[in-house]
Amino acid sequence: MSGAPPRPREQRRLDTLHRLEQDVDAWVATAGADATPYLVPLSFLWDGETLLISTAAANPTARNLRAGGRVRLTIGPTRDVVLIEGTAETLDAVSDEAGDAFAEKTGFDPRRERTHYPYFRIRPSLIQAWREVNELAGRDVMVAGAWLP
Amino acid sequence: MSGAPPRPREQRRLDTLHRLEQDVDAWVATAGADATPYLVPLSFLWDGETLLISTAAANPTARNLRAGGRVRLTIGPTRDVVLIEGTAETLDAVSDEAGDAFAEKTGFDPRRERTHYPYFRIRPSLIQAWREVNELAGRDVMVAGAWLP
Repeated sequence: MSGAPPRPREQRRLDTLHRLEQDVDAWVATAGADATPYLVPLSFLWDGETLLISTAAANPTARNLRAGGRVRLTIGPTRDVVLIEGTAETLDAVSDEAGDAFAEKTGFDPRRERTHYPYFRIRPSLIQAWREVNELAGRDVMVAGAWLP
Repeated sequence: MSGAPPRPREQRRLDTLHRLEQDVDAWVATAGADATPYLVPLSFLWDGETLLISTAAANPTARNLRAGGRVRLTIGPTRDVVLIEGTAETLDAVSDEAGDAFAEKTGFDPRRERTHYPYFRIRPSLIQAWREVNELAGRDVMVAGAWLP
């Protein structure tokens, strides 16, 4: 416990945006139709509104996202959580600009893989940000796809 | 990328045990019956064979674990992954010894909460450990509940 006072919402929103822009990896949770949880680390690119990820078409994450599109992911350590719930759209290809930006940020270019790596564009519906127990109240910074004022 | 050579399996097993003993928090992924992924950070206690966690009975994690018991969790940062798949047994109470050990390690005592916080004992069936891409091969350190030799 850091003992720091809880951050006001505006600060949490700014800290969240900073993580979305600067962090490279997210923990990405999806679920299979038989209620099987899946969880892997994946690199992402934030474009200001959505997160772009990519994983091999044969991986459970890709299969789960194609089937349902529901995703819950986190950025940051367990004591500086940015938690995002959203839906993913499957993109079998992206623009050259998006593909280049993804490769530059993540150091990984799915277009160069020998097997098929679809992209997935995740649109957040809920974003929460908290550090310690004293920040659990007021952790919502985005609800129903809109940043809270 | 650190550029370090891939660790042999025995080193990965030792590093995994160190994390299980020393780390406090895990990312815990479960799934609802309607294929809804859920993911939260929770503190854990490792007893040498299983992980003990606790969360409010009303939380989706508790509901999902009671319903199916399947869990996938990770310990460590995204570039030093310990990934565990297992099943959870619901414990509405634990021995005083286990409860005390959990509270001492995590700084959180579910027995003192005003609402019901069941414990869940997670038995790993699969454990993987990897840092960078060059460690993806050979990442299994436990399969079918047994440490690999």
